[in-house]
Amino acid sequence: MQEFELIRSIFQSSIMAQTEGRSDILLGIGDDCAQVIVPEGQSLVFSMDTLVEGRHFPFDADPVDIGYRAVATCVSDLAAMGAKPAFFTLGLTLPESDPQWLAGFAEGMAELAEPIGLLLVGGDTTKGPLTITLQVHGYVERELTPRRSQAQVGDDIYVTGTLGDAAAAVPIVTGELHVTAERFDYFYEQYWRPSPRLIAGMALKRVVHSMMDISDGIGQDLQHITRASGVGARIDFNALPVSDMLANWQPDSARILALTGGDDYELCFTAPPSARDEIQLILQTLHLPCTRIGEITESGYAVDGYDGDTAGWQHF
Amino acid sequence: MQEFELIRSIFQSSIMAQTEGRSDILLGIGDDCAQVIVPEGQSLVFSMDTLVEGRHFPFDADPVDIGYRAVATCVSDLAAMGAKPAFFTLGLTLPESDPQWLAGFAEGMAELAEPIGLLLVGGDTTKGPLTITLQVHGYVERELTPRRSQAQVGDDIYVTGTLGDAAAAVPIVTGELHVTAERFDYFYEQYWRPSPRLIAGMALKRVVHSMMDISDGIGQDLQHITRASGVGARIDFNALPVSDMLANWQPDSARILALTGGDDYELCFTAPPSARDEIQLILQTLHLPCTRIGEITESGYAVDGYDGDTAGWQHF
Repeated sequence: MQEFELIRSIFQSSIMAQTEGRSDILLGIGDDCAQVIVPEGQSLVFSMDTLVEGRHFPFDADPVDIGYRAVATCVSDLAAMGAKPAFFTLGLTLPESDPQWLAGFAEGMAELAEPIGLLLVGGDTTKGPLTITLQVHGYVERELTPRRSQAQVGDDIYVTGTLGDAAAAVPIVTGELHVTAERFDYFYEQYWRPSPRLIAGMALKRVVHSMMDISDGIGQDLQHITRASGVGARIDFNALPVSDMLANWQPDSARILALTGGDDYELCFTAPPSARDEIQLILQTLHLPCTRIGEITESGYAVDGYDGDTAGWQHF
Repeated sequence: MQEFELIRSIFQSSIMAQTEGRSDILLGIGDDCAQVIVPEGQSLVFSMDTLVEGRHFPFDADPVDIGYRAVATCVSDLAAMGAKPAFFTLGLTLPESDPQWLAGFAEGMAELAEPIGLLLVGGDTTKGPLTITLQVHGYVERELTPRRSQAQVGDDIYVTGTLGDAAAAVPIVTGELHVTAERFDYFYEQYWRPSPRLIAGMALKRVVHSMMDISDGIGQDLQHITRASGVGARIDFNALPVSDMLANWQPDSARILALTGGDDYELCFTAPPSARDEIQLILQTLHLPCTRIGEITESGYAVDGYDGDTAGWQHF
C-alpha cells in the first residue's frame, strides 16, 4: 500500500514539515525506526489507543472529524499526566485507498496536532476494516507527574468543564435522533471535537495528588483512582457539572448522563483542601470551569443523591 | 473489553513482572500513560507495525506463532538501527474474547520478548477483525545509529543469513502445498520464527555506512537505501545466499525467491571495502553467515545475471 506516501505528502505542509525545527526529533518517517532525543530532565510518557469504525465512532463519519477526534481522545491521556505533547505514530487500516478520505483524515488530525506541536514521526498502513491506532508521546518532569495512585484520604475531587454532553450527542451523531439545528451544532461539536485539557493538566500537575482523564464516565473512571490509591470516594450527584444546553434539553437525565456517560475527555483530579485557593486561581486564569464534586474517603464508593448503577458506559 | 486485564494476568509472570527491576520504566500498564526515562547518552528509536489476519499471516494460525512472529518482525526494525530492545506497546483488535487464544498469543510474544528484555508497558484492546499493532522501542547511541541514507559509492553490499525461505514457506503455512515432514518443519519454522538480527545489528553499527532489515525482498528493499542515499547499486544475482534446504527443493527458483521474496527479516548493510576483515570477524564471532552480494554505484540499479522483475513482493 502506498497510503503512507500519500499521508506523507498531505502532511508535508503541516505536522511533518516542522520536524526540521525540532531538536528532539532526529529521524521521522522513512527509515526502519523513528529516532528521538528526550529533552534533558524530562521523562517520556505515551499512550496507545485503538479506534474501530462502528464501535468507537459511527460508520461513514466525516474523515475530518474522525481524524480530529482520534488525536483529541489520545492526547487527553497526555493532559492527564501534565505532559507536553511531542510526537505521535499512526497505524491505519483502511478498506481501500481513498485519497479524498485520507486527505480529510489528515486535515482533521493536523487541525489539532499542529497548534499543540504534536508531530507525526512514523506508523504503518494496511488494508482491512477501518481501524485507527494512535500512539501519542509527550514529555514531563519525572517528579511532577500526576498518577492515579496518589489520591489521599481527605482530598477534594474535582472535574474540569461539564459532563454528559458527549453521551447525549451519540444518538444525534449516529443520525438516530433529529434535533433543532442549534442543538445539532452544539452536540455534534461536543462529540467530535473534545478539547483535551492540556494546559490545565500542565498547570495543575504541581498541585494535584492524582489525576486522570474521563473517557468512560466519572462514575466508572473515578474507581480507577480509588482502586489504584487504595482509598474510597464519595461524590455528590447534584454537584456534577452539566452544560446549560444539556440541562435545558434533558433536565431529568442530564446528571445521570454526566455520571455514567463517556467520551467527554475532561480531567478528574484530587487535591488537598489546602490547595483550594490555588486551584481556583489556576482554573480562573485558564477560563476553564472546574467543579468540586466530592471527597476521597477511607473506603467504599458512594454517590450521594443517586441510587442507580454507576458503571457501564459502552461507547456504542 | 476486559482482555487487557487478561493479558496483564498472563504476562504477570513474564514480560511485565520484570518492570520492577528496570530503572528506565517508571510506569507500565495501569495509568493514563506509560512513563520511561531514556538512559543517559541514549536516543530512543521505535517502529510501529500493523498485522492483519489473512493479509500478513494466514487465517486460523496458531496464536503462539502469531505472537512470536509479530514481535520478531517488529523487533527486526530495532536490529536495523543497532538498537537494544527496551519495551513495547500492543494494540489488539479481536473478534471475540477467547482466553485460550490470548494465552497462546501472549506465550508466543513472551517467548521472544522475555529473553531480549523487551517489556510490555501499555496498549489497548478492542473488538473487531483480528488486527495486531505493535510499537517496539529501543535505545541506541545517537552517533552510532545506522541509517538508510548513508550508503556511499564504492560500499560493499552485504546480507546476513540466507534469503527466500520465508517466501517459499508461504504455500506450506497456508496449507496449499503438502511436503515431506522434514521440509514442513524446516519451512514452517523459517516463516513463523524469523530471528531478528539484534546482536549482529548492535555489533555492526560501528562499522556500517547504512543498514536496514529485509521485509519485502532484497530486490525491492535495497532501493530504499539507494533512494535515501542518492546512489545506485549493482547486485550479483548468483551471489544471493540461499539455504541448502531451499536449493535442494527448488533449484531453479531458489535465487528468484531470494531476490523477490519477503518476510526473511535478515539485515542488509553497506560498508566500505576497508571494513571487510572487521565485518568477517564480527559475523564469524556471532556464527552468523554473511554474504557480500554487490556494491553501491553512482546511479542505476542492476541485478547482474537476472532479467526478471525485482519488485512486487506482496505478503499474501
